[in-house]
Amino acid sequence: MIKSEALKTEIIAVGSELLSPFFQDSNSLYVTNRLNDLGIEVSFKTIIGDEENSIRQTFEIALKRSDLIIAMGGLGPTRDDLTRETLSKTIDKALIFHQDILNNIKQRFKNRGLSMPPVNTKQAYILENAEVIENPNGTAPGQWIETDGRIIILLPGPPHELYPIIDDFIIPKLQKHCRHFSARCVLKIAGLTESKIESLITDAYSNNPAVETNTLAYPGQIEIHIKAHSSVSHEEALSLLQEQEHKFSDILKENIFSNSGEELEEVVGRLLRSHKKTLAAAESCTGGLLSHRITNIPGSSDYYLEGSVVYSNEAKIRQLSVPEEKITRYGAVSKEVAASMARGIMKKSNADFGLSVTGIAGPGGGTPDKPVGLVFIGLAWHEGVSVTKNIFLGQRDIVKFQSSQKALDMLRRFLLRDRKK
Amino acid sequence: MIKSEALKTEIIAVGSELLSPFFQDSNSLYVTNRLNDLGIEVSFKTIIGDEENSIRQTFEIALKRSDLIIAMGGLGPTRDDLTRETLSKTIDKALIFHQDILNNIKQRFKNRGLSMPPVNTKQAYILENAEVIENPNGTAPGQWIETDGRIIILLPGPPHELYPIIDDFIIPKLQKHCRHFSARCVLKIAGLTESKIESLITDAYSNNPAVETNTLAYPGQIEIHIKAHSSVSHEEALSLLQEQEHKFSDILKENIFSNSGEELEEVVGRLLRSHKKTLAAAESCTGGLLSHRITNIPGSSDYYLEGSVVYSNEAKIRQLSVPEEKITRYGAVSKEVAASMARGIMKKSNADFGLSVTGIAGPGGGTPDKPVGLVFIGLAWHEGVSVTKNIFLGQRDIVKFQSSQKALDMLRRFLLRDRKK
Repeated sequence: MIKSEALKTEIIAVGSELLSPFFQDSNSLYVTNRLNDLGIEVSFKTIIGDEENSIRQTFEIALKRSDLIIAMGGLGPTRDDLTRETLSKTIDKALIFHQDILNNIKQRFKNRGLSMPPVNTKQAYILENAEVIENPNGTAPGQWIETDGRIIILLPGPPHELYPIIDDFIIPKLQKHCRHFSARCVLKIAGLTESKIESLITDAYSNNPAVETNTLAYPGQIEIHIKAHSSVSHEEALSLLQEQEHKFSDILKENIFSNSGEELEEVVGRLLRSHKKTLAAAESCTGGLLSHRITNIPGSSDYYLEGSVVYSNEAKIRQLSVPEEKITRYGAVSKEVAASMARGIMKKSNADFGLSVTGIAGPGGGTPDKPVGLVFIGLAWHEGVSVTKNIFLGQRDIVKFQSSQKALDMLRRFLLRDRKK
Repeated sequence: MIKSEALKTEIIAVGSELLSPFFQDSNSLYVTNRLNDLGIEVSFKTIIGDEENSIRQTFEIALKRSDLIIAMGGLGPTRDDLTRETLSKTIDKALIFHQDILNNIKQRFKNRGLSMPPVNTKQAYILENAEVIENPNGTAPGQWIETDGRIIILLPGPPHELYPIIDDFIIPKLQKHCRHFSARCVLKIAGLTESKIESLITDAYSNNPAVETNTLAYPGQIEIHIKAHSSVSHEEALSLLQEQEHKFSDILKENIFSNSGEELEEVVGRLLRSHKKTLAAAESCTGGLLSHRITNIPGSSDYYLEGSVVYSNEAKIRQLSVPEEKITRYGAVSKEVAASMARGIMKKSNADFGLSVTGIAGPGGGTPDKPVGLVFIGLAWHEGVSVTKNIFLGQRDIVKFQSSQKALDMLRRFLLRDRKK
């Protein structure tokens, strides 16, 4: 049994493309997240090309300083793929041919009506005493090697091959070594700034080192990532997690729109569906983004009826029956026009709700009175209409996103209140 | 003068957050791209936490194997920031206090109406004999150290501080060391598959090792990145580049929509503007994405009049005057309805062009006759209408994106032909 906190861990990503300006090692984020679940922290990440000297050096260094070494990539069938062969030389363990693995690889090709190219034969070689890790989604099996008290794991690089192996084999096997349990959740929040949230929850943070929180701020969305650890049982970790989650949610209440990974557009869709209500949207400065986000959710045609992108004043008047005098008097970017647009799209489409957005996304079009980032957002329902005035900071795309986020959040809060009545 | 091909180069990214599942070192992609311009390839990338032992070890290893070492991050004012202090110990060069740097830092705070916190004083310390690299966008200056024939460069981690220093100081200074010139461009292509492009241009690749090409494939878009190198002059590199670019563009012709970094929606916007034409869009399965992409371009209100997101049949009939019998007879996903939608939005909005999209984005809604991914796209102009039938593969978001890409590309090709008349 190893203490996972003490397990010095290193990730090695092998692949010349990862040293180009075009590709990034993002596998290690996934692997790190799952290792963290076991209380294992990563100390080093090294990225190297498909080059024997580099691979050898990197393994030598890793073997000196790390207990757990996870190397990804370079197990393919081509001459470039050298990880397996180089590790064999570095730790002086022979590569042994496995007939059953070769049969598996041949079968994979056969299933697709192909015959195996001879180069793939090298994927059937496994280091002496290594445990074979099955790869259900590719031809290169992984390998688990224990040597001199170190664990070295060789894994394929393609994410659709790697991730299932991590989840189904590596984590459960390390779990046995580590006896460490964890549970996690993400609280997603809209409608409050990061500093406001911090000031609200500052006394609710746990002093327990087994409870870990990370706050990530995006435009229009703050996320609190909570992870709880236990050396006893998953249940203990879960109960620590829930305790912390409840502390935060008692304070932040309906400002939290999701604790289960859902995006805001999914939450709004679910609420509309459960209320059996329909929606239509009228967009000026978001230019279609609000509709795009709503319709990203499979099945959204059940509750989303239609949208209008009304850039020109003429379109606002004709499509949404916004009175021309309102535009003349208050301007297209105004509370009055936002209200008219929301009512207009609701009535025209016969939807239960109308959302509207009108504002100045920039970079041009701002004035001292109406600066870039000024956005009015309207929500109409059969009995009324409400409009918020917002000033969003950032580039055009950030203003567009924050506007769509605020529109969705206004509807979400309305639907929540509606339910309470 | 150093031969840049022979310059073993290593990037070190320092920051504990880069070992978490939340953040990724993406600075190195930018730095790599600019180094490649000088013919310098990166051999190692190491990512470590803000931890003295790790930093020290990593520098020691790098000094053994690399000629050029670029370390980013860990120059901040807090106790966590250890890169400067650790390198000083590792290579045994004292940190020297620079009054002028401290004055600069104080002035930065003063300009914002603040006084400098005492912790920032440590940012005024520079390694013995190091060259100070000014940081116009932050308090931590960079440092250029030459020792035992190696170059070590310390740089701040925040991208808005790092990138200008790379462009304005590091690359020009390395340029003097390297005497290597390069030029590059990206050909962006829509409407052809990667394999089709490969088969067309296979004989046009250069045998000259000074000309480098990388093909990157995305859904709906293929990019050919070309880079040409010269040890003589920028002009020579440029002429090699142009020669290769012309070879490809003579073959691929108008399939290339951009060689200057423009996105498809920018190209379409520019063409509409130069033709003094206007556009409106009617979207079913893209659900607003097409309008969203068009309106991402600043100033798009000059040529984009309006859009309709018509999810329901009722909205197609009412908003776009699609004859109900057409929907009954051919179905909402059909050539006939796409044509009607394109004409409908054009007429209603009084635009010169109408684009329409109707299809099945999935995951639900497919039938044997009309599978998920079947999308009809219509383009109407005053004298006619044309519709394409497409089968796109992939998840909902990929089908949506490819549909919007194809719609934009149909209009682009029409506008190009139009110009030729």
